[in-house]
Amino acid sequence: MYVNRNYSFLMTFKWSKKPFYYGLVYAAIITILYQVTEIKFTLPWQPISIIGIAVSFYLGFKNNSSYDRTWEARKIWGAIVNDSRTFATAVISLLNENPDHETEILKKSLIYRHLAWVISLRYMMRIPKSWEHKFGPQNIVFVPTYAEILNNGLDKELKEYLSESELAHFRTKSNIPSQILKKQSEVIKEIKNKGLISDFKQVWFHQLIGRLYDNQGMSERIKNFPLPRQYASVALWMTWVFCLLIPFGLLDIFLTSDELWIWMTIPFSGMIIWIFFLMEKIGDYSENPFEGAYNDVPISSITRGIEIDLREMLDDENIPKPYPVENGFLM
Amino acid sequence: MYVNRNYSFLMTFKWSKKPFYYGLVYAAIITILYQVTEIKFTLPWQPISIIGIAVSFYLGFKNNSSYDRTWEARKIWGAIVNDSRTFATAVISLLNENPDHETEILKKSLIYRHLAWVISLRYMMRIPKSWEHKFGPQNIVFVPTYAEILNNGLDKELKEYLSESELAHFRTKSNIPSQILKKQSEVIKEIKNKGLISDFKQVWFHQLIGRLYDNQGMSERIKNFPLPRQYASVALWMTWVFCLLIPFGLLDIFLTSDELWIWMTIPFSGMIIWIFFLMEKIGDYSENPFEGAYNDVPISSITRGIEIDLREMLDDENIPKPYPVENGFLM
Amino acid sequence: MYVNRNYSFLMTFKWSKKPFYYGLVYAAIITILYQVTEIKFTLPWQPISIIGIAVSFYLGFKNNSSYDRTWEARKIWGAIVNDSRTFATAVISLLNENPDHETEILKKSLIYRHLAWVISLRYMMRIPKSWEHKFGPQNIVFVPTYAEILNNGLDKELKEYLSESELAHFRTKSNIPSQILKKQSEVIKEIKNKGLISDFKQVWFHQLIGRLYDNQGMSERIKNFPLPRQYASVALWMTWVFCLLIPFGLLDIFLTSDELWIWMTIPFSGMIIWIFFLMEKIGDYSENPFEGAYNDVPISSITRGIEIDLREMLDDENIPKPYPVENGFLM
Amino acid sequence: MYVNRNYSFLMTFKWSKKPFYYGLVYAAIITILYQVTEIKFTLPWQPISIIGIAVSFYLGFKNNSSYDRTWEARKIWGAIVNDSRTFATAVISLLNENPDHETEILKKSLIYRHLAWVISLRYMMRIPKSWEHKFGPQNIVFVPTYAEILNNGLDKELKEYLSESELAHFRTKSNIPSQILKKQSEVIKEIKNKGLISDFKQVWFHQLIGRLYDNQGMSERIKNFPLPRQYASVALWMTWVFCLLIPFGLLDIFLTSDELWIWMTIPFSGMIIWIFFLMEKIGDYSENPFEGAYNDVPISSITRGIEIDLREMLDDENIPKPYPVENGFLM
Amino acid sequence: MYVNRNYSFLMTFKWSKKPFYYGLVYAAIITILYQVTEIKFTLPWQPISIIGIAVSFYLGFKNNSSYDRTWEARKIWGAIVNDSRTFATAVISLLNENPDHETEILKKSLIYRHLAWVISLRYMMRIPKSWEHKFGPQNIVFVPTYAEILNNGLDKELKEYLSESELAHFRTKSNIPSQILKKQSEVIKEIKNKGLISDFKQVWFHQLIGRLYDNQGMSERIKNFPLPRQYASVALWMTWVFCLLIPFGLLDIFLTSDELWIWMTIPFSGMIIWIFFLMEKIGDYSENPFEGAYNDVPISSITRGIEIDLREMLDDENIPKPYPVENGFLM
Repeated sequence: MYVNRNYSFLMTFKWSKKPFYYGLVYAAIITILYQVTEIKFTLPWQPISIIGIAVSFYLGFKNNSSYDRTWEARKIWGAIVNDSRTFATAVISLLNENPDHETEILKKSLIYRHLAWVISLRYMMRIPKSWEHKFGPQNIVFVPTYAEILNNGLDKELKEYLSESELAHFRTKSNIPSQILKKQSEVIKEIKNKGLISDFKQVWFHQLIGRLYDNQGMSERIKNFPLPRQYASVALWMTWVFCLLIPFGLLDIFLTSDELWIWMTIPFSGMIIWIFFLMEKIGDYSENPFEGAYNDVPISSITRGIEIDLREMLDDENIPKPYPVENGFLM
Repeated sequence: MYVNRNYSFLMTFKWSKKPFYYGLVYAAIITILYQVTEIKFTLPWQPISIIGIAVSFYLGFKNNSSYDRTWEARKIWGAIVNDSRTFATAVISLLNENPDHETEILKKSLIYRHLAWVISLRYMMRIPKSWEHKFGPQNIVFVPTYAEILNNGLDKELKEYLSESELAHFRTKSNIPSQILKKQSEVIKEIKNKGLISDFKQVWFHQLIGRLYDNQGMSERIKNFPLPRQYASVALWMTWVFCLLIPFGLLDIFLTSDELWIWMTIPFSGMIIWIFFLMEKIGDYSENPFEGAYNDVPISSITRGIEIDLREMLDDENIPKPYPVENGFLM
Repeated sequence: MYVNRNYSFLMTFKWSKKPFYYGLVYAAIITILYQVTEIKFTLPWQPISIIGIAVSFYLGFKNNSSYDRTWEARKIWGAIVNDSRTFATAVISLLNENPDHETEILKKSLIYRHLAWVISLRYMMRIPKSWEHKFGPQNIVFVPTYAEILNNGLDKELKEYLSESELAHFRTKSNIPSQILKKQSEVIKEIKNKGLISDFKQVWFHQLIGRLYDNQGMSERIKNFPLPRQYASVALWMTWVFCLLIPFGLLDIFLTSDELWIWMTIPFSGMIIWIFFLMEKIGDYSENPFEGAYNDVPISSITRGIEIDLREMLDDENIPKPYPVENGFLM
Repeated sequence: MYVNRNYSFLMTFKWSKKPFYYGLVYAAIITILYQVTEIKFTLPWQPISIIGIAVSFYLGFKNNSSYDRTWEARKIWGAIVNDSRTFATAVISLLNENPDHETEILKKSLIYRHLAWVISLRYMMRIPKSWEHKFGPQNIVFVPTYAEILNNGLDKELKEYLSESELAHFRTKSNIPSQILKKQSEVIKEIKNKGLISDFKQVWFHQLIGRLYDNQGMSERIKNFPLPRQYASVALWMTWVFCLLIPFGLLDIFLTSDELWIWMTIPFSGMIIWIFFLMEKIGDYSENPFEGAYNDVPISSITRGIEIDLREMLDDENIPKPYPVENGFLM
Repeated sequence: MYVNRNYSFLMTFKWSKKPFYYGLVYAAIITILYQVTEIKFTLPWQPISIIGIAVSFYLGFKNNSSYDRTWEARKIWGAIVNDSRTFATAVISLLNENPDHETEILKKSLIYRHLAWVISLRYMMRIPKSWEHKFGPQNIVFVPTYAEILNNGLDKELKEYLSESELAHFRTKSNIPSQILKKQSEVIKEIKNKGLISDFKQVWFHQLIGRLYDNQGMSERIKNFPLPRQYASVALWMTWVFCLLIPFGLLDIFLTSDELWIWMTIPFSGMIIWIFFLMEKIGDYSENPFEGAYNDVPISSITRGIEIDLREMLDDENIPKPYPVENGFLM
């Protein structure tokens, strides 16, 4: 997530310059061909503009859908924050005290295992998918802290919150966060069997775990189900077809006014092509909010926030620092 | 579901080429007729463009609605994943233990019957409807594994999770998944009568079953209630009318500049007609997310994911493998 | 609900032909007047096209809202299906057994009364409103089975599920479904007083009844609160004003090219007027999803589906057949 | 709420005629000035049409938001209907009977106090706000019954359902409905202390009261938070700027064809100005659904419906009649 | 929040005049350059208008998203109002009485701590973010009361509702509201240990606290996650590019009619540029509903409303007055 007021024009342009340059070259070829061959292959602008309007609509729809995906992803991780706080408060205040301080140890282990769930879910969200843009940690040059942690891997982070044996058990499973929650509900069963909570409170804990399953599943849904590729592809190819037609149409217009300025076709084509591919790209780069790139929902930072909040509730020590903003990015 | 970055231009074109070819032929006929008869039946472009804008809007609305249907379908099956995990965790952790290990058998049978519910619901979703595109398993050439399983039929899959007698009973009913859930709640009643759960926990299990009924009913709603046919049909016929007018309008424009190039009417008509029918088709092929075709929500794969997850929770054996991606498709 | 792939072009046209014919006549009058009087009352097309775009937007908004109403109506009746199944399962599995088989009779009467609720709600939804299109059962020629059942009236259907005395009591009330649910909660009170359910289960039943009240109230809301008439009326009158201007604008365009073909104004006006009124009508005929006409949400068929499902749960006899599809329509 | 099929064209025009007349006068001044001074101050139409499209979009967005406010308001009052029925059914069926018939009196007083809550909330919704259109009861000439009841004031209606002392107590508070609900929960506490309900049922009643607070708060939100005035104002001023430019643009177009018909600028300007201000007004008059004017959500009629329904549940006497539709309006 | 009917045209213009003036200067430079150099660098209007339409769409999308953010923020604070009332009613009516009046003190302290939560959340919402417009209290000249309270700081307000020691404890924590809620649930645990509430009621209180965590987290989400900067930036730069092209296009149009009036390019450019930047700004200034500026959701006023309502429930004394409307603004 970029956290400054606006991407500068230069940053925006640098990121999206390819279509502009290719557009220039393409329009130049068309214009020169026209000058050289004198074949009248220009096209009237009016029907091209109808295609342009249709493409604008379609891109509008796609940008809207991409935005909704990003926003929903953020909502889900917001719900993870809320339910983490509620779960931690439940652990802290709903268990009966018993004399030998075992309860305090149990509370801490439940909250630590919960943090392991959040962290392993975060890792799962960042595993690359076949429809995503490819970024390796080595490419995340503007946010070195994040790239470093990514390189360290899941195990290093989980070790802080799980015992070795538990970690080994989870490693044999396909879906680690899902099995962590199952473990939590088994621990709560033991707590109930020890008489620290009533039947009724056990069900309430189970309902909380159900909400965590909901959050996990919704997050997986955004991750595993892309913007349907038929929609995304049509947006791309419609933009291509429209942009291929532009120089033909502009040539036609410029020809009617004055032959000398026919060369204006080239920069003007480049600019229109750039604008349309910019609209196409902005949706394209926002539709996968967990692809491990700069416009991601900042789930690393959100996870860290949960760690801080829950460990402050435990009056814990060695609480980690919030993620830094580096070069305007928060991951 | 297609899982690669984009459908290639060739794939997109192959799938939608008919309107292009027919458009070429139609525009050729009009142009030749014009040349031969010299009757001035051309039409001005300006009013045609108003129709074009209206059609773009309408298709935009329809594509949006189709997308919402697909997305809602995915959300519902996401909820089935979440509630399956919550249900399995409830089964595993909320029952009291009894000495003779009967509980373990009960747990396994409850979770197996739940898997039978998911599988039978998946089959019901793939039964063809009168408004859907027709695909038989023999047409699903790009995803042979899926076609094969489809051919094997429901019974073969259910046998793994249900006893013969139960299966025979369900076969006499109209709505198998609905009756499976009723059976689950009767089993839970027995569990309660045996004293393995309290009155309160029985109601909680019943509420979970209520959520599964909600998921099933929502999935049936998407399946049984198409995008209202009046909306879909008007989209189709408006596109037709607009496309029929295009060559008349283009002729008029090309005529005014230079008679020689009047033949450009033909490819240019084909292209515009193709773009508009492409927009029409993309919604048309996404509005029924369970029609058993390539752009479906991948409910077979989701079902398999649930099987793996729940059976790993049981520390079960012979856990099946995830569905393979074949030729870029996941079903 | 129409259940075939698409309304044919002929069906679509037959249903919406009036504006086309009137448009032809109107445009003919204008064109002849122009030819006879030679008064230059034509209008430039450019500003007309701005009105056309504004009208397209407005109709797009209205169609979207109408679609949302239909879709919400279907969602509500989907929820009625789900909550009916949950309620029936609750009745079947949550009551304690008592020796004299009284419980079985109670269960059946509760589920039968529930079916009476669904049926009476369906009838209430089909009572005509002052803003709806007027259809009598005699006009529903394409779906004779539905028309016949409509003619038989509510009482005949309710008698199957309610005793004579109860039915007589409900007839004195303004809102029958609302009073049926109140009766259900009184019966559940008696069941509790007999010791067949605990205090806790009584509240759960009451919550289920609360959900049924929610479904009923939402269905009444769609029925009793139309698309605000100011929005609908402005859509209609804007379309009228735009269509009245069309021949003046087309005349102006045709005049500039060639006087001979001025007569093309007439069919072309008819076609544009038809397209815009078609867009207006499609929303207009979908905004009241319970008006008892062909594009209704098929609540008769949904009700029948609930009857079948719940009575199969009771292992009941003489279970009715599903509603037939007649001439492509399901009601 | 208007309940007929459509506002007639005359009613629509009468309500929105001002911009038409002013538009005529303004365009006439411009045209005459042009004729007299012969200064060429006309403007090209093409850039004006871009402003027109931008304004159409913006008004479309605003109309959509206004519609959503009205629809949400209706949903909230629909929820009030549903929760009122659920609350009344809870009161009737969840309390234990005691011998001295005190319970019956308690039940009636709880339901009566609930009706007082609905009525006082309705009054609060109709108190004028600084951003609303100003209507006094004396202006509501088409719905005299409603105007009369409005004149009678809140106290007269509340006296039917509350004792004098309670009413006096509530009069000292800022937010009467909020304090009525607090009183309800104190009465339920007493009922619990008398042993008529269990601990568990008390909480369920409290949850019902929480839902009523939700409904009240959502209704207050719509009332107290207008469509943000910056959005509404920009819609207004953009429409103004666009309409001020129209005659300059039309003059330019008419000039190029024939000087004689330059006077067509005047009626044509009036018409376009009227259409755009009509679109602006339709949103403007729907954005405050509780302003006490003709397009309001009919909360008086909904309140009366709740009174009838709940009092029929009590088998009460002197049940009031439904609100009449007067001149096509229901309030 | 502005609470009058409309921002006057003058206020609107004053707030957005910069692009108008810069537009004038820029267009003047272009026009003079053209006159002086006689280089034909003008551009055809038709392709510019396609960019204009695309920009209009994009700004429409952005305005819609900004509006949704504001509206969601208001909904969240509406939920805070509702849940505060429900929580206070729970505190007042669900605790058992004990003889030594300790309960009354406990009730008051719980409600006071709740008010401290609301107030500290409000302060947290107003801490400036790197993507927000910068306003210091000294700039809020039109609402002096609000600016003054802002200057006084959080501590002064919290002291009224929290003891010194509690306040000192919270000051050591990162997220004060989050820790206040944790404290509430510990106090409720003590209440339960004293026997004033049952196990069941304790869980209900915990669920209420969970809802408050949800509200807090949703409010934080709106605050901490801006409209994705890539979307916002592209809107800005697209508007810039479009506006830079406008004078070139207008020059071309004016040239074709009459050289004398070529100077009309300047005011007309200014006006179009102003309209588009106005649309851009209106979204830009509404996307952060808690930035402490004039168009904020009025969370200070809402907080005060909660204080009044809850303290009236306690029959408290020295209840503060509602926030005043100053110069049409409510904060």
